[in-house]
Amino acid sequence: MTSLCSGKNGAKIISPEFSNLVREVYKECLSCCESLSQVELVSKVPGKRYFAFAARKDISRAVNEDLWSPSLSDWDAFEDALNRKDFSALSDTQINRTLYSVAISFCSWCDLYDDPRKVPGTFFEKYIANLVGRYLGVVPTNSLQVLKFDDDDTELPTDLIFDLGKRKKKYHVPVKTSTRERGIQMWAHQRVIDGVYGTAKILGTPVLLTETKTDTKKREVVEICTPMQWQLFQSHIAKLDAVYYLDVPAKYEKLNSTPIRIAVSPFGAFFQ
Amino acid sequence: MTSLCSGKNGAKIISPEFSNLVREVYKECLSCCESLSQVELVSKVPGKRYFAFAARKDISRAVNEDLWSPSLSDWDAFEDALNRKDFSALSDTQINRTLYSVAISFCSWCDLYDDPRKVPGTFFEKYIANLVGRYLGVVPTNSLQVLKFDDDDTELPTDLIFDLGKRKKKYHVPVKTSTRERGIQMWAHQRVIDGVYGTAKILGTPVLLTETKTDTKKREVVEICTPMQWQLFQSHIAKLDAVYYLDVPAKYEKLNSTPIRIAVSPFGAFFQ
Repeated sequence: MTSLCSGKNGAKIISPEFSNLVREVYKECLSCCESLSQVELVSKVPGKRYFAFAARKDISRAVNEDLWSPSLSDWDAFEDALNRKDFSALSDTQINRTLYSVAISFCSWCDLYDDPRKVPGTFFEKYIANLVGRYLGVVPTNSLQVLKFDDDDTELPTDLIFDLGKRKKKYHVPVKTSTRERGIQMWAHQRVIDGVYGTAKILGTPVLLTETKTDTKKREVVEICTPMQWQLFQSHIAKLDAVYYLDVPAKYEKLNSTPIRIAVSPFGAFFQ
Repeated sequence: MTSLCSGKNGAKIISPEFSNLVREVYKECLSCCESLSQVELVSKVPGKRYFAFAARKDISRAVNEDLWSPSLSDWDAFEDALNRKDFSALSDTQINRTLYSVAISFCSWCDLYDDPRKVPGTFFEKYIANLVGRYLGVVPTNSLQVLKFDDDDTELPTDLIFDLGKRKKKYHVPVKTSTRERGIQMWAHQRVIDGVYGTAKILGTPVLLTETKTDTKKREVVEICTPMQWQLFQSHIAKLDAVYYLDVPAKYEKLNSTPIRIAVSPFGAFFQ
């Protein structure tokens, strides 16, 4: 599986070969997950139920029971829709469940069988880069040119940048399996980009997996959210255009209707 | 040693008891370091030589040979000067070496005998909070009040805040053993504080240990610096008033003389 996570971003990431590789990975993860037992977690998140996969004495990260929908044929239906750019036969909820199941099955597999610190984040970034890049029809980059009077032009390393072309929309897409105390970085990078290119020129639209944190000893799951701080970041640092989650935290979804609005949606809605 | 690292910040942190505890820790660390062998590291940092302490098959983080100056009597001389607020008998360089030796001996001890991920950062934060708090004569806090029209007043968690009183200086002091890719957070937090309280009202003055990274297999040490990005952060996010290092990276020291100036100095200079 590691071949998927190596190499630099580029045209390869939106190639059919890469998409096939994601399918292969999902297929393997599904057969692996089927063979594992599931343990119920004590959910401290109102309205959400979670379980974890178990192997030996270990348990995986938390899996949202209502989003977990393991099905390779659902994935094929989504891929077919993405290739045709016609999602009319699929609902947001269906799409979100499918995309969540791919991501969470791979992450859970890593938790149980691999180094949990590195691979899930890299896989998730490339997986989302593939989906967004194919949907928008552009190859993402990982840096922006910055003009300086004193030195030669320099490159600013960034999260994924999708540039639809001259006078067309451009997106700055941080991709993370969770933000926790690192959330502020998304706004800070957006601020630098706004400063260099102008406000609202490159739209900040992060794609995030979840904000759950699992206590493997107590077998409890909590969601770590700081909505008050997000509002301070949105009003004092920069404006994020939209925030997408596969497992949307209710505390962040409420920011849709606060005066300092942050548009938080399930990632499935991105494709409609 | 763990008792030092527990409890919340508050008056305790600038108490004589806490200072005595630091002395005890340093004494223990010195006797531990004396009994350890030292291995030369291949320094990829121009003009700096580094070694590591070795125990069993492990080696500690990199220790700067020119700054390493293990001496309890030097520490006592510094403490005496700090208590009298008279540093005339000590040079910046001497102070910096003494303060570096305390921090790096504790961190090295943790690398070899304890969980290296958590304790050094906590110790370093409290150690610096104690020194700065006693020098300024104020107890640091870890949050600021934020006024909101819509909700009750809320608290913004922050790095250390030293408030010298009405119409007197106030400092925002992030304390980290290294910044790496998290450096942007210092500017982002400063931006929020500037937004809430006004620019230059609370001065951003981080205190940092080093930017070295040690490859324990190759026994090589490098410095991870992104001076071009720091200039972008300083010009586009917020203005840090001064940045203090115990082991100053040359690439950041050069930012003192760039058009977008960042005042980077050895922490020893803070006490003059």
